[in-house]
Amino acid sequence: MGVKRLTILGSTGSVGTQTLDLVAENPSAYEICALIGGRNLALLAEQARKFRPEITVISDEGLLPALREALAGTGLEVAGGRASVLEAAGRKADWTMCAITGTVGLEPTLAAVRQGGTIAFACKESLVSAGDVFLHEVEQAGATLLPVDSEHNAIMQAMADGNAKAVDKIVLTASGGPFRNHSLEDMRSITCEAALRHPVWSMGAKISIDSATMFNKGLEVIEAARLFGLSSEKIEVLVHPQSVIHGMVCYADGSVLAQLGSPDMRIPIAHALAWPQRLATQAPRLDLTEVAKLEFHAPDELRFPALRLAREALAAGAGAPAVLNAANEIAVAAFLDRKIGFLDIAGIVEAVMQKLGAPTVPDLAAVLAIDEAARTAASTLAAAKAA
Amino acid sequence: MGVKRLTILGSTGSVGTQTLDLVAENPSAYEICALIGGRNLALLAEQARKFRPEITVISDEGLLPALREALAGTGLEVAGGRASVLEAAGRKADWTMCAITGTVGLEPTLAAVRQGGTIAFACKESLVSAGDVFLHEVEQAGATLLPVDSEHNAIMQAMADGNAKAVDKIVLTASGGPFRNHSLEDMRSITCEAALRHPVWSMGAKISIDSATMFNKGLEVIEAARLFGLSSEKIEVLVHPQSVIHGMVCYADGSVLAQLGSPDMRIPIAHALAWPQRLATQAPRLDLTEVAKLEFHAPDELRFPALRLAREALAAGAGAPAVLNAANEIAVAAFLDRKIGFLDIAGIVEAVMQKLGAPTVPDLAAVLAIDEAARTAASTLAAAKAA
Repeated sequence: MGVKRLTILGSTGSVGTQTLDLVAENPSAYEICALIGGRNLALLAEQARKFRPEITVISDEGLLPALREALAGTGLEVAGGRASVLEAAGRKADWTMCAITGTVGLEPTLAAVRQGGTIAFACKESLVSAGDVFLHEVEQAGATLLPVDSEHNAIMQAMADGNAKAVDKIVLTASGGPFRNHSLEDMRSITCEAALRHPVWSMGAKISIDSATMFNKGLEVIEAARLFGLSSEKIEVLVHPQSVIHGMVCYADGSVLAQLGSPDMRIPIAHALAWPQRLATQAPRLDLTEVAKLEFHAPDELRFPALRLAREALAAGAGAPAVLNAANEIAVAAFLDRKIGFLDIAGIVEAVMQKLGAPTVPDLAAVLAIDEAARTAASTLAAAKAA
Repeated sequence: MGVKRLTILGSTGSVGTQTLDLVAENPSAYEICALIGGRNLALLAEQARKFRPEITVISDEGLLPALREALAGTGLEVAGGRASVLEAAGRKADWTMCAITGTVGLEPTLAAVRQGGTIAFACKESLVSAGDVFLHEVEQAGATLLPVDSEHNAIMQAMADGNAKAVDKIVLTASGGPFRNHSLEDMRSITCEAALRHPVWSMGAKISIDSATMFNKGLEVIEAARLFGLSSEKIEVLVHPQSVIHGMVCYADGSVLAQLGSPDMRIPIAHALAWPQRLATQAPRLDLTEVAKLEFHAPDELRFPALRLAREALAAGAGAPAVLNAANEIAVAAFLDRKIGFLDIAGIVEAVMQKLGAPTVPDLAAVLAIDEAARTAASTLAAAKAA
């Protein structure tokens, strides 16, 4: 194995920085093609000085002069703005970490896919919203997709023996979030502060709320369907509060293969980074004598309608998952702004899904149009609730 | 894949019959070279009529005339006695199930190894007693070893991504047997009847007692060391009363891969039978919502000295594991005969190990000699306790 040439889309985010931590632990194995950050100028400049990428791009063009100044005298190439992000993402790399979350990450991720290397994939929205378009581009480019989401990475690891055709079903585990034992009545009055306190993983605000509503798991069901070519009924969700088992593959012979680990994103990132080999990490080791007990129960789709809605979107196909994803983003933002209640999130998503249905999405422009329409419809509903 | 030519050593035992059940479910995929049974004439004749092997051998030569009579008019070749067992085991086959337990299985298993096909391996004594000799023959013949013991089969499945060099350690789970919560004082008065009641697996008498003393797990640690080329400290034993997770592989990147399943031997047998592919079985499916809870705790080597003794035998190397295995077989037989107490089993094994040490075992004759010496020493000690 020679030196791997890496690009990091979203290098200053949580997944991006953890990817670079692993690179720093194994400096001779990797070189950096492009680092692409959003707005965190200071961190991006620090990363560029440390890793000396071929190009450093800040997405917010207004920050380009400051980035230039911060890297003055280093001889490093810098750029800023959307066009530069797409150009840098499209440069030939062996391995690209796609970790720009939300719809904004869609185009840079597609640019990375088109250059045809290995794509480590931590932006589920791209697969959820633009599934068919995205997978078509992956196929055209001959790119290799490696999921980094801990559940999907677990499934990939548990399928390593290459017998995908003998899979009966896969199981995505869910912590169940902080409200897994709440009654529906109690869920009406959930506050933003309570929803942000996730029991296991330390995450950003959007994904913490998605975990509390279980929309995160719903999006993951859609992502898994795309990644592994499975229908909804072959993808089971299992509530497992300890989040030690991340995913399982149930084979036709009765064997179940599972991936377990401490809840630390460096573990799936390291798997994707070294694949098909493995590297050593400093991530905390799983100690089952300390955990002592793993529990499992079926999810309750009555209290957590997100799972039902995600399966409905998957069954409807076409643009329905894009509608669900965009409406959920707007509804979560409104909840974080204290404009709507916790249960309103799923209510708004369902109403927008009913309104917009499953329009065909033949290309990226159509995906972006339906995304926009869903956001508008969700904003209108959220404003009405807030009034 | 063409039709696989199979031989079953020990076709009338539990593993043998379950192997043939799987063959019967997929008749077009397999043909039978040899069926080799011990004393169960009626079952062996029935199997021969059903599967029409090239040769049917009964180990007990005195039963050959009766077998001949039972298969009269079928046109099937039959034979009896030790020499015929070895001849049939050595016939060219694609895949051989080696399921003759105890030292008596050693030579037929080696005959199967020497013909060089794939060896499904359900007779851990061969690897424990004759480890170096056995592995040398495997290498010479270019045979492929597939473990069928549920724990070792689990480890093999969890190593399917081919990164054996990145393994930090492996974990063999143990139900802990029926006495895992007994105090040392209570263990003094354990009866044979109580020891035969295994909480999870339905097994023969010898292996049930081995499970109760945890000698079974000790033998499995030695077997795992041989199969996977790992030192004792890289093989952890974890008590897991539900026996749902059968084995785990802990990788250097923090990922843990595990194999889970219902406690049904058809599952690992099917894995070995179809490897590197998988086949569909009727084995019961694991339902974690029904199990609900998996528990784990460290084993107690004070109450279960078998684990300590096995690690000592592994560290001593050479003939020490053969001594442990043979002394344990005799001590278990004496316990089943109500001649010694439950705690005497480990006591006798330890005393014999101290007496005989770790003599060199350059060849099979030396293995059989040390096996015999250990049996004699153990019998003497057992008789003294019984007196």
